[in-house]
Amino acid sequence: MLSNESKAQVLTRALPYIQRYAGRVVVVKYGGNAMVSDDLRGAVMSDIILLSLVGVKVVLVHGGGPDITAVLQKQGIPSRFVGGLRYTDAQTVDVVQMVLAGKTNKDLVALIQRMGGRAIGLCGLDGGMITACKHAADEDLGFVGDVARVDTTPILNALKDGYIPIIATIGADEGGQVYNINADTAAASIAGALGAENIVLMTDVRGLMRDVRDQATLIPVVQVSEVPALIRQGVISGGMVPKVACCVEAVRRGVHRAVMIDGRIPHAILLEMFSDEGIGTMFH
Amino acid sequence: MLSNESKAQVLTRALPYIQRYAGRVVVVKYGGNAMVSDDLRGAVMSDIILLSLVGVKVVLVHGGGPDITAVLQKQGIPSRFVGGLRYTDAQTVDVVQMVLAGKTNKDLVALIQRMGGRAIGLCGLDGGMITACKHAADEDLGFVGDVARVDTTPILNALKDGYIPIIATIGADEGGQVYNINADTAAASIAGALGAENIVLMTDVRGLMRDVRDQATLIPVVQVSEVPALIRQGVISGGMVPKVACCVEAVRRGVHRAVMIDGRIPHAILLEMFSDEGIGTMFH
Amino acid sequence: MLSNESKAQVLTRALPYIQRYAGRVVVVKYGGNAMVSDDLRGAVMSDIILLSLVGVKVVLVHGGGPDITAVLQKQGIPSRFVGGLRYTDAQTVDVVQMVLAGKTNKDLVALIQRMGGRAIGLCGLDGGMITACKHAADEDLGFVGDVARVDTTPILNALKDGYIPIIATIGADEGGQVYNINADTAAASIAGALGAENIVLMTDVRGLMRDVRDQATLIPVVQVSEVPALIRQGVISGGMVPKVACCVEAVRRGVHRAVMIDGRIPHAILLEMFSDEGIGTMFH
Amino acid sequence: MLSNESKAQVLTRALPYIQRYAGRVVVVKYGGNAMVSDDLRGAVMSDIILLSLVGVKVVLVHGGGPDITAVLQKQGIPSRFVGGLRYTDAQTVDVVQMVLAGKTNKDLVALIQRMGGRAIGLCGLDGGMITACKHAADEDLGFVGDVARVDTTPILNALKDGYIPIIATIGADEGGQVYNINADTAAASIAGALGAENIVLMTDVRGLMRDVRDQATLIPVVQVSEVPALIRQGVISGGMVPKVACCVEAVRRGVHRAVMIDGRIPHAILLEMFSDEGIGTMFH
Amino acid sequence: MLSNESKAQVLTRALPYIQRYAGRVVVVKYGGNAMVSDDLRGAVMSDIILLSLVGVKVVLVHGGGPDITAVLQKQGIPSRFVGGLRYTDAQTVDVVQMVLAGKTNKDLVALIQRMGGRAIGLCGLDGGMITACKHAADEDLGFVGDVARVDTTPILNALKDGYIPIIATIGADEGGQVYNINADTAAASIAGALGAENIVLMTDVRGLMRDVRDQATLIPVVQVSEVPALIRQGVISGGMVPKVACCVEAVRRGVHRAVMIDGRIPHAILLEMFSDEGIGTMFH
Amino acid sequence: MLSNESKAQVLTRALPYIQRYAGRVVVVKYGGNAMVSDDLRGAVMSDIILLSLVGVKVVLVHGGGPDITAVLQKQGIPSRFVGGLRYTDAQTVDVVQMVLAGKTNKDLVALIQRMGGRAIGLCGLDGGMITACKHAADEDLGFVGDVARVDTTPILNALKDGYIPIIATIGADEGGQVYNINADTAAASIAGALGAENIVLMTDVRGLMRDVRDQATLIPVVQVSEVPALIRQGVISGGMVPKVACCVEAVRRGVHRAVMIDGRIPHAILLEMFSDEGIGTMFH
Repeated sequence: MLSNESKAQVLTRALPYIQRYAGRVVVVKYGGNAMVSDDLRGAVMSDIILLSLVGVKVVLVHGGGPDITAVLQKQGIPSRFVGGLRYTDAQTVDVVQMVLAGKTNKDLVALIQRMGGRAIGLCGLDGGMITACKHAADEDLGFVGDVARVDTTPILNALKDGYIPIIATIGADEGGQVYNINADTAAASIAGALGAENIVLMTDVRGLMRDVRDQATLIPVVQVSEVPALIRQGVISGGMVPKVACCVEAVRRGVHRAVMIDGRIPHAILLEMFSDEGIGTMFH
Repeated sequence: MLSNESKAQVLTRALPYIQRYAGRVVVVKYGGNAMVSDDLRGAVMSDIILLSLVGVKVVLVHGGGPDITAVLQKQGIPSRFVGGLRYTDAQTVDVVQMVLAGKTNKDLVALIQRMGGRAIGLCGLDGGMITACKHAADEDLGFVGDVARVDTTPILNALKDGYIPIIATIGADEGGQVYNINADTAAASIAGALGAENIVLMTDVRGLMRDVRDQATLIPVVQVSEVPALIRQGVISGGMVPKVACCVEAVRRGVHRAVMIDGRIPHAILLEMFSDEGIGTMFH
Repeated sequence: MLSNESKAQVLTRALPYIQRYAGRVVVVKYGGNAMVSDDLRGAVMSDIILLSLVGVKVVLVHGGGPDITAVLQKQGIPSRFVGGLRYTDAQTVDVVQMVLAGKTNKDLVALIQRMGGRAIGLCGLDGGMITACKHAADEDLGFVGDVARVDTTPILNALKDGYIPIIATIGADEGGQVYNINADTAAASIAGALGAENIVLMTDVRGLMRDVRDQATLIPVVQVSEVPALIRQGVISGGMVPKVACCVEAVRRGVHRAVMIDGRIPHAILLEMFSDEGIGTMFH
Repeated sequence: MLSNESKAQVLTRALPYIQRYAGRVVVVKYGGNAMVSDDLRGAVMSDIILLSLVGVKVVLVHGGGPDITAVLQKQGIPSRFVGGLRYTDAQTVDVVQMVLAGKTNKDLVALIQRMGGRAIGLCGLDGGMITACKHAADEDLGFVGDVARVDTTPILNALKDGYIPIIATIGADEGGQVYNINADTAAASIAGALGAENIVLMTDVRGLMRDVRDQATLIPVVQVSEVPALIRQGVISGGMVPKVACCVEAVRRGVHRAVMIDGRIPHAILLEMFSDEGIGTMFH
Repeated sequence: MLSNESKAQVLTRALPYIQRYAGRVVVVKYGGNAMVSDDLRGAVMSDIILLSLVGVKVVLVHGGGPDITAVLQKQGIPSRFVGGLRYTDAQTVDVVQMVLAGKTNKDLVALIQRMGGRAIGLCGLDGGMITACKHAADEDLGFVGDVARVDTTPILNALKDGYIPIIATIGADEGGQVYNINADTAAASIAGALGAENIVLMTDVRGLMRDVRDQATLIPVVQVSEVPALIRQGVISGGMVPKVACCVEAVRRGVHRAVMIDGRIPHAILLEMFSDEGIGTMFH
Repeated sequence: MLSNESKAQVLTRALPYIQRYAGRVVVVKYGGNAMVSDDLRGAVMSDIILLSLVGVKVVLVHGGGPDITAVLQKQGIPSRFVGGLRYTDAQTVDVVQMVLAGKTNKDLVALIQRMGGRAIGLCGLDGGMITACKHAADEDLGFVGDVARVDTTPILNALKDGYIPIIATIGADEGGQVYNINADTAAASIAGALGAENIVLMTDVRGLMRDVRDQATLIPVVQVSEVPALIRQGVISGGMVPKVACCVEAVRRGVHRAVMIDGRIPHAILLEMFSDEGIGTMFH
């Protein structure tokens, strides 16, 4: 049970952060454990609604890993991964679209609505938001796509009309072929196109650590220019490489700050954005 | 090869109809064969885009029968129908949402965008558009729902922003439970809530016929007050009953005209709305 | 009696053309036989209303040759032409203003209104739309003027308010002296000032023909850069020279396409703008 | 040469009147000597521009008597008057439209524009502003019309866009037949439809006088309810009867004050509206 | 040092309260110790800025007791109180205006601006916001006034333009005489005129207590209908009577809730509005 | 008693001046005798209201010399002047703020409101309008400030909302310290920031005169480039130097004309702005 003094302190300390973000666009890439656990999902949506109420133009971009795998299994379609990316044949891309845009996306919309927020679920096909092109890789990945172009109109319309836009990351090329697009890279492109103030990537790690076994070695702030050295030193390695690449890409596209936070911590978004210490690692 | 004179005549004769519908809301319930055949689907979307360009505020409401059945089969979930309605247990409603909102809906969006139109795909969960309640029936149908309330804001926003709203007919109750809602009845409710000028139901029959075996007996215009007599006479029977009920319901909710057209005729919507004769049966 | 299939085809084929012109400005210079015959006049106004309804911002610029001559005759004022232009003394310019702005212009307004369209009749004096200067010529032509400057505000206001602006081509210089301005050249200046997509000149010929006696020699498309050669070859000669000069001028002022069509063909505007083949000759 | 004190006094005394009329609609019926003399015409237009600049929404309605007679004479068409109204056959109504809407109207527009004001010339045909019907009289008057309905949209649009609307009083019936409408009665109808604060009728008399030979008997203010008695007493007689009828009609349609002023006095409008004494006779 | 969990909890628990007040008007009557202490003043302004940022339309109404007394003393003008109200002669009302509108008001504006908020300082004279009338009392109080009428336009303009309106409670009567108006009653009138959701009165007591010596007897919620009984029981007595009267008056004028809070508790406004327990006594 | 002709002439001659200033910003620096005498104050406010009604965006900037001295005297605080500027210690700046923003400013607001105008009283603290910095001088002047930056938002908001902004010239630095700013220099800065058409300085002299004892030597127009020579010649000297410096400064910041007028002449503003001769000296 907190004292009134403590309560007031927390709310008051949030003030300068709310002032900083009021009216700005913040893109949240939502994924990992924060998406799987019901409790964490509720906490994230609560954070998103709160951000939206204090005047932040928050845009939620999500992937849908486990949901997709589950439906593929039910339909007896084998999952195959190449270099961390799902090989996506014609029937797989169909399932990906259906699950991402129809299940994961709309479940989040319904959850926010039930919690008193206002949300609209969109995918990259709506209003031609994401024009995709085939992802170039050494090995063919099928219908895995990159973002060629973002039309921010449907996102800005939703924000203007007072809705939280929730975005499933599929897109189509000029000929109408649908592609499965990695949610991290799509979020970075969308944040860049929106001229976002912040992009927040929810992950399953504390942030970038000098020694992954020791949380005390967390690096709170990284200059984009330091990244090559950190890669050479092996501090950025393995699954961290593409995550960091997204942060760097977003900053290059004009986003002021890209933050990697631990989605396993309840209300990690609020703690990162509205308190003095921040949590996780910030790239700028 | 048509003469210039004929071409000019067709365009010119469309003028008074365009004048009549300019700025008005027209709800098209899209289903049946017009949804299954690629050619017919293209013709319908072309009609929809044309209506939108000539200033009609067109709203497309769709079902997704065959798509749902196909995915249920792939997942080994048996389909069971009670009195023409699909028994919808928890796993079925999950598939219904996923297929309607993620596949059928977004495929239509992508098709319109590729043809040069501008569309946004929504379902009844977006912005809390459709509040549903459990459908009351003699036999329990599971998560089959009725429309309790329509919030037209998301639809009107899409129209105002220059998009064709495409709507998948699922909805949630106050507790967040999702329901599968019959597209015909949802379309009637939506048309009523929007104060639509017209609702156009695409079916697989020519319209209401005194003798179903003889197209020459097509009844072009029916007063809503004549319907009970037509039911008694057996002219309205079988699968026609719920279709006619939707038309009657829409008219009761203030829609000026409810038209049942044959979706198997290419460009049936244009022919109905923009020519002297009309096709199908109109209720008013 | 056309089949439904043919009707649908004509409407559907118009779609890409409507998409191309939606929201764009198209200036129609109206004159010649299309202005004299009641039937043709009705057909032109019907086309104009249809264009307006499908979202084209159509501006009608007209001359008034026969009307002016008739009133001059009634008042016993002789008509004298110098190099194809009417010598315009003080009492003639008075009649020109009165007939163009008071009779021809308002008759067209009334006709469109009666056919269900919405029109406002303006002349170059309204809101200071056309600032004129004396036309420089070898022989003095009196109060024949050129367009020195166009203020598009009154035209844009009419379009914004949903009216078809109908424009009589007289103008005044800084001192208030009124001038009679050739409608073709005024239309080209107005189209340029509006940044029009198209200017359509209604004439009494099929278009530019290599052999004027053989309609099969119609030249459908001409690059502006080809015009000098066509003049040297004698293909452009006589009454065609000023018409082509207007088209060239309009294109030079930034209008995308200038089209010369045969006003004797009913609905020539629609046929030119909304069908695959076009009719007449297009300069770009 | 006025002292600074006197100048300041005049301007300052205008203040409460400007406050009263700011943002209100005032209809000025312009006619008589004020229209014939160049000096008076300039003074009236200067008053109109000044009113417009100080925030009055001024609407100018004009007749065109002498202009019409002059053109009819030039064309050898005899003028015939029945009970003060011009018998108007088909060729006469044609001349009336042409002269009123093409000459008188546009000359006024040009004059205001040259004096630095902004004006748009409209007639009752534009945007369907005046729907007319045949004037019922004992003796047939041909195409003399009454105002059946006023659509104020074109007038309000001109005011909103910052133009002074100048209106020629012809109108058409549903079938498109044009009618010549008395400017006084048209002005009263327009003022009523606009909910005008004031209607100012410019005449060639000082106002209503108990003894027409003695200006000292001018009646400055008349209650509408006193009019019948004044008619019985013979104070209102002859040409005054229809003028007073217009004032009464305007007041009945909700106009706050109807004022009859002497157009032969330069700047009579300003003197009436912006000074303590007023000139002429006010009905309310 | 609070745990992340505790911080997140405080912020999250504020969510439903923020949702409730978003877009609503809340009037804060600011006075007493919270106005005298620098620390408390900073805490109040911080709360006001925070409320404003989370979308509450907050209006600050203040008195200025000690400031006024200090300046009166400096000028050697004796203060005299009659029944708790300051006797206000001509020179006193001059000082009151000067201090309230020029010192207390503008100091608060400057403080909010320095803390990153946006504020505009107004008094009841600005835009004719408060029309006052002489306060009727047994003994003459001089220029002590009551609120006769509130014109909310200047307040609504400030809110619309994104400023926090800060209001000094003086007003003038029709003749321009300025009056000193009690801030509590002015706040109640303003809250009523604005249709406020809440009025918050900052006092120097915990709230309404059954036994003033025992804070445990605080009455958290009072129905307006219970007030007469509480007065009879002596629970509401002394200085509480006028405070409660203001709360009752505000509720009678349509304000949903009137809350009396203890301004000596730092951040009392936030604690009252954004936490589960509330502090102080709420009338509704 | 003026003749109608004279009255009409005065009003009519004002027309071109009203046309010139309509919609433009004019800053009036109000001070000196015009502020002390009740009659002159009324005349100035009447002029301001009239300018506002004829569409001029008038901004009133005022000092408050005698009011400040009077209150300082009442509080026994000695006034000390250094080089024409008041030495301003901490208690003096407090009195300056209180008197300027609370008494002089709000008295003017109340006067305009009582005369039927609409005014809002602001000081440089409101909305952070004036950021001040310490005035650099040979001798320390205490809290005498210069204008470092003007945020015109609160002024433009007041104009947009139809109010006359009345501005007291105090401002604060980043740390919140309040400064007393000379009204002439503040007015010049505000006029520059607003891109004003005119700045009008009310003084107690006729204008710039070659011989101060002979009003016939008034210089009506001065080019800014002529000023240095006029200083060398001694024509500009003594108290005129800072006044002229303000005019020059305003013109350098882009104001078209800076006019020095004699505030002792009733309605000097109207006479200067709305008549042919002007009064006073104009710099451009």
